[in-house]
Amino acid sequence: MKNISILGSTGSIGTQALEVVRLNPELYKINALTAQNNALLLIEQALEFKPEMVVITCEDHYQTVKQALPNVKVLCGEDALIAAVQLPQTQLVLTAIMGSVGLKPTIAAIEAKKDIGLANKETLVVAGELVMQLAKDNGVKIIPVDSEHSAIFQCLVGEENNPIEKIFLTASGGPFRGKDLSFLSTVTKIEALKHPNWVMGAKITIDSASLMNKGLEAIEAKWLFGIEAEQIEVVVHPQSIIHSMVQFTDGSIKAQMGLPDMKLPIHYALAYPQRVTSNFERFSFLKHPEFTFLQADTKSFRNLELAFTAMKKGGNMPCIINAANEIVVEAFLKDKIGFLQMSDVIEECMQEINFIGQPTLNNYLETDKQTRIFASELVTKQSLINLK
Amino acid sequence: MKNISILGSTGSIGTQALEVVRLNPELYKINALTAQNNALLLIEQALEFKPEMVVITCEDHYQTVKQALPNVKVLCGEDALIAAVQLPQTQLVLTAIMGSVGLKPTIAAIEAKKDIGLANKETLVVAGELVMQLAKDNGVKIIPVDSEHSAIFQCLVGEENNPIEKIFLTASGGPFRGKDLSFLSTVTKIEALKHPNWVMGAKITIDSASLMNKGLEAIEAKWLFGIEAEQIEVVVHPQSIIHSMVQFTDGSIKAQMGLPDMKLPIHYALAYPQRVTSNFERFSFLKHPEFTFLQADTKSFRNLELAFTAMKKGGNMPCIINAANEIVVEAFLKDKIGFLQMSDVIEECMQEINFIGQPTLNNYLETDKQTRIFASELVTKQSLINLK
Repeated sequence: MKNISILGSTGSIGTQALEVVRLNPELYKINALTAQNNALLLIEQALEFKPEMVVITCEDHYQTVKQALPNVKVLCGEDALIAAVQLPQTQLVLTAIMGSVGLKPTIAAIEAKKDIGLANKETLVVAGELVMQLAKDNGVKIIPVDSEHSAIFQCLVGEENNPIEKIFLTASGGPFRGKDLSFLSTVTKIEALKHPNWVMGAKITIDSASLMNKGLEAIEAKWLFGIEAEQIEVVVHPQSIIHSMVQFTDGSIKAQMGLPDMKLPIHYALAYPQRVTSNFERFSFLKHPEFTFLQADTKSFRNLELAFTAMKKGGNMPCIINAANEIVVEAFLKDKIGFLQMSDVIEECMQEINFIGQPTLNNYLETDKQTRIFASELVTKQSLINLK
Repeated sequence: MKNISILGSTGSIGTQALEVVRLNPELYKINALTAQNNALLLIEQALEFKPEMVVITCEDHYQTVKQALPNVKVLCGEDALIAAVQLPQTQLVLTAIMGSVGLKPTIAAIEAKKDIGLANKETLVVAGELVMQLAKDNGVKIIPVDSEHSAIFQCLVGEENNPIEKIFLTASGGPFRGKDLSFLSTVTKIEALKHPNWVMGAKITIDSASLMNKGLEAIEAKWLFGIEAEQIEVVVHPQSIIHSMVQFTDGSIKAQMGLPDMKLPIHYALAYPQRVTSNFERFSFLKHPEFTFLQADTKSFRNLELAFTAMKKGGNMPCIINAANEIVVEAFLKDKIGFLQMSDVIEECMQEINFIGQPTLNNYLETDKQTRIFASELVTKQSLINLK
C-alpha cells in the first residue's frame, strides 16, 4: 500500500487523482489533502479518504473546515503546505497545485525524501536546475504527471543508459490551430476555453490555446530529461493520441499513446514502477484511423517562441515568462487584455526584468515577485488603453 | 567488442548486417559467415571481414570457396552450420537464414549458450514453444530482428514486470492493399514483388503481398512475448512508420517508430542492450505528415486467417502452414500456381497432414518434410490444371 499526500486535491488533477485512488482502495492510502479555496469539496474528500491532515491555504475557510472535520488535523496558510508534505508515512507527494506557489512545498517534499508525482509545471519551469539537483542529492524520483512528460518518461523506462537524441513534444494545437494573427486579435475567453481534446483547468486551457503551455512543457522537459532546447521539436498532432516521443541516438523512436485522458498518466505516476490494471476506455484504431502532424506556427503563436528564447537564455528568464504569463492569463480571463496582448506583456517583462544567470532560490522568488508586479502594471496600462 | 557469427550472410538481412558491422568496426568482430549458394559474395565478405570459419551449404561450391580462402576454415553442407554457431568466442549468432532449415542451427546455438539475433522467422513459427523453453533453460537472450518484433521488444525494455494486454502488429498491407478477390486471382509475381515500403528478399516480399508474413509474425510474437492469439491485433498501416505497439494493462500504449529500413532493427539487435549512434537517415514529420490505420481484410487475404487458425490450434499446425507456404511461394515465383491458389494448397495441407498436439523436435521435422511432399504434389496437380 502506497501512502500519498495530494497538494491541490480539489483541482482538475487532484480530483482525477482521487478518482484513481477510489478505484484502487487496496493500493493507496491518502495521508494529506490540501486546497486553496474550495472548502466544501475538501471537506467532502476528507470525509471519504480519511487523511490524517488537511490544509486549506485561504485562511477565511479555516473555521468551516476545522468544524466539519473534528477528527482531522486541520491547518491553514501557505506555510502549512510544508507540514502536509512532511508527514513521516508519506511516500509520494502529488503536487497538483497550480502556479509558482507549488515550488516551496515541492522543495520541502524533496528534502523530506518523498518521491514526487509532479503535476505542478512551474516547479521545473521556474527552478528546474535547482530542483533536479536537489532530487538527485536526496535520491528522490520525480515522476511527471503531465501527459507529454509521462509519455517521455514511459519511453525512457529501461533506456537509462541510452542517450536521448531528440524529443518530439506533441501539441494538439488548441482551439485556434491554423488561425492567423488577425483572427487571434479578436478571440474571446469563451472561445479560448474550448479545448478540442483535453478537459483541464482554466489556466492551462488558455495556455494551450496560446501554445505557452507547450513552451513551458519544453522547459520542463529540458530539466526533467537533461536535454537542450535544440533537442526538442514541438509537433502539432491535432488528434492528441501520441502523447510525445523520444528519438535515441540510433535513430529509433519510441512513442507513448492512448486516449486523451489525464487519469492515465496520473494512474501511471501513482503506480510507478508498476503498471496497475485499469478499466479506462481503450484506444481503438477503428475510431481513430488517422494521425496527422504539422509544424507549430510560431509566427501566430508567439508565446511558443518566447518560451524557447527563455529556455536558451536560461537563468531566471523562464521564471520571468512564467510569472508574467500567470498575470496575463488571469487578466485575459477577466477580459482586461486581448489574446495577443498576452505575448506583448510577456515580452516586455523579458526585456525589462533584471536578468540573473545563476539564480539562487531567493533570486527566483524575488524575480517571480518583481515580474508579477511589473506585469500587473503593464496589464493595467493596457486595459485602460483597451477601454478607450 | 562483440563476437558475432552470421548464418546467411549473403541474403538481404545478412548483407545489411555486414553493412552495420562495417560502419562500427570498433564494436563488432565477425567469427563465422555462412551462405547457401552465393559463393562469390561469401568469398568477398570473408576477405573483408576475416572470419575464422565460412560455411557454404551447397557442396558444389565448396572447392571454389576453399581455394579462394586459403587462410580460413571452410566447411560445406547443412550440418556444418552447427559448427559455425559453436565457435567458442562467438557471443551472438545472427540467424539470417531463410526457411525452416534455420531451425537446427538455431537450436545448436542456444545449446551452445550463444545469444540469438533472430531473423529466421521459421524457428519460432515451427517450434516456438520448444525453442523459447530451451532459451530460458540456457539463459540465452533472443533478440528479434524483424522490424515488428524489434519494435515490440524495444517497447518492452524496462517493462519486464508489467503484463502485456495486447499487441498491435502493424502491416503495410503490401502491394495489393485494398484489392479484392477478383483482382488477386490475376496478379503476377512481378506485381507481387513490388513492395511499397520495404526492400526485402523475394520469399518474404511475396509473403507480405499475401499477408502470410503477418500471420507468421503473429505466431512468432505469440512465442517471443508469451501471449495468446486473442491478444494480437493486426493493424494495416500503409506508411510503415509505426513498426508495432504494445498495450499494457493500464491502457497505456507504447510504439516504436522510424523510417522503414531494416538496418535499424539489425543495428539494435547487434548492439542490444546498448543503443549505438547511427548515421541512418532520420524520420521527419514534415516528410510523413499523416499516418493511417485500417483493419486487415481477411476475406481477400485468407492466409492471415489461416495463420491465426493455426496459431489457435497449436501443436504442429503452424509448422504445417509454414512448410506448405514455403512450397506454394516457390511455385508462385515459378509461375506454377496463381496468387489465390497458394491459400487453397495451404488450407488443404492443414486439413490433411496428421495433427500432433504436443510435438517433439523430430515430430516437427517430420511434419515439415511430409507437408512439403504433400504440398508439392498439390502444386503439381494444380499447375497441370492451370496449363490446360
